[in-house]
Amino acid sequence: MGEVLVVGSVAFDTIETRAGRREEILGGSASFASLAGALQAPFRIVAVVGEDFPQEHIDLLRGRGIDTAGIERKPGRTFRWSGRYANDFSTRETLDTQLNVFEQFDPKLPEAFRRSDVLLLGNIVPELQLRVLDQMIERPRLVAADTMNFWITGRRDALLRVLERIDLLLINDEEAFQLSGEKSLVRAARAVQALGPRKLVIKRGEHGAFLFDELELFYCPGFPLDDVIDPTGAGDSFAGALLGWIAHHGPDASLRRALVRATAVASFGVQGFGVEGLRDLREENVVERMEALRRLVAI
Amino acid sequence: MGEVLVVGSVAFDTIETRAGRREEILGGSASFASLAGALQAPFRIVAVVGEDFPQEHIDLLRGRGIDTAGIERKPGRTFRWSGRYANDFSTRETLDTQLNVFEQFDPKLPEAFRRSDVLLLGNIVPELQLRVLDQMIERPRLVAADTMNFWITGRRDALLRVLERIDLLLINDEEAFQLSGEKSLVRAARAVQALGPRKLVIKRGEHGAFLFDELELFYCPGFPLDDVIDPTGAGDSFAGALLGWIAHHGPDASLRRALVRATAVASFGVQGFGVEGLRDLREENVVERMEALRRLVAI
Repeated sequence: MGEVLVVGSVAFDTIETRAGRREEILGGSASFASLAGALQAPFRIVAVVGEDFPQEHIDLLRGRGIDTAGIERKPGRTFRWSGRYANDFSTRETLDTQLNVFEQFDPKLPEAFRRSDVLLLGNIVPELQLRVLDQMIERPRLVAADTMNFWITGRRDALLRVLERIDLLLINDEEAFQLSGEKSLVRAARAVQALGPRKLVIKRGEHGAFLFDELELFYCPGFPLDDVIDPTGAGDSFAGALLGWIAHHGPDASLRRALVRATAVASFGVQGFGVEGLRDLREENVVERMEALRRLVAI
Repeated sequence: MGEVLVVGSVAFDTIETRAGRREEILGGSASFASLAGALQAPFRIVAVVGEDFPQEHIDLLRGRGIDTAGIERKPGRTFRWSGRYANDFSTRETLDTQLNVFEQFDPKLPEAFRRSDVLLLGNIVPELQLRVLDQMIERPRLVAADTMNFWITGRRDALLRVLERIDLLLINDEEAFQLSGEKSLVRAARAVQALGPRKLVIKRGEHGAFLFDELELFYCPGFPLDDVIDPTGAGDSFAGALLGWIAHHGPDASLRRALVRATAVASFGVQGFGVEGLRDLREENVVERMEALRRLVAI
């Protein structure tokens, strides 16, 4: 069973949804991804926090077998984000962003992390994603990356260099349209694959996710939930669970099942604020929901 | 093999999409539904047209085995609708609606139509849907209905009476939210089913469709197309193909496969303007696309 190295953010989120409000709870792409995948593989985090970051959050991650040796503590305050979701969750408004120590994030990989089976380059400046890749002693078996609209327009050249060096890109449909200039999902996917990543996952939130592999196309619907509490981090949880599956199952891993796993885990994530839905997640519950997804589409 | 009786509109559509513009082409819910289902069952139409309606359209329908004896020709002009779609097809703008003879539509069922295996009450005033039901000598094995936001708010009482008398309701997600007052799809579906229809199909356009049956939940994704030409009538094509399958396969018809069939047929429909994508549809092409949908979700 391989390890998954995640480079991303660890943050405090203040969140308002129709279900309520929470202040300064644990968030950040690396937190969500590692907690989501931890049931299946040992995760390692590279991130930065401030002096105000409490030991209890570190303990929470460690309690799930996550190696936090790469979480650097720097003078100053931890990254903070605050947002409010529309009642139907179709949009969200960022109320406040304080990058704090994250502004000068310069990922330094502990020696032991420089060989990892699977690498997830979280959504950070593409130049930093490249610097992480350069620190690996051996190229990981699978390199995955996330990105966002901000880098697609503002850091396109660096992002294109990242795309040439990764195996799997995870983006949402709007980002695929933006990156490719195409208007249909199928055309956009082909254009993005031509930029480098042989595997492409296009996430559509509650509408599920597409996997464009070299030869095949797979689709997994979102899990129909009675209620959503907080969608923050759903994409990161999805990515973490996907890569946890791939690390656990090795070179013969079924990517279709990995997508089903990722969908199931992410659906638990949005049923609580922040990492509430992930921190106590049990294997049997994930397996049950994967089976429900199988039945949902069985013809 | 049973027959399908469709009561709805036959119209002239003027349509503008990013793919081009067409003027006064054949449209209307009954045209789309009957052409979409005609490969599998004999369809019968009840509708009204004006003096300007050309024989060639009647011939087109008849050429696909559709019984047009219930298309009444009245003094005046045929129903006209004109619309323009946004470039990403997420919204459309109605430019003009001329109800013309459709304004006084009073469906009269030919004697032979009053016994039909399956009945589709197209999206017309709920009071007219009730009047159609009253004209049936025997209750059809399956009664399905479509409706819209306009009737949900403006004719709620009559619509509730319709819901008590049908087996299957086909609506989109916004209509389900509006009708139920619920915000989650799953809750909305249960609330709508409690109003009468034991089977409920919630359409989400390119995002696929859910079937809520008494005991089970099934989901079929939209077929991922390289390009969409004109989405007009997609919901009607979907309904027609679904009911064609049910009429063809009888009481043991798999509703899951009916949904896959409906998705496949509707996807051909949106690849041409108006009924272009349906008028020459061949069984082997539909079967091939159903198989592609099966592979798309095979885990």
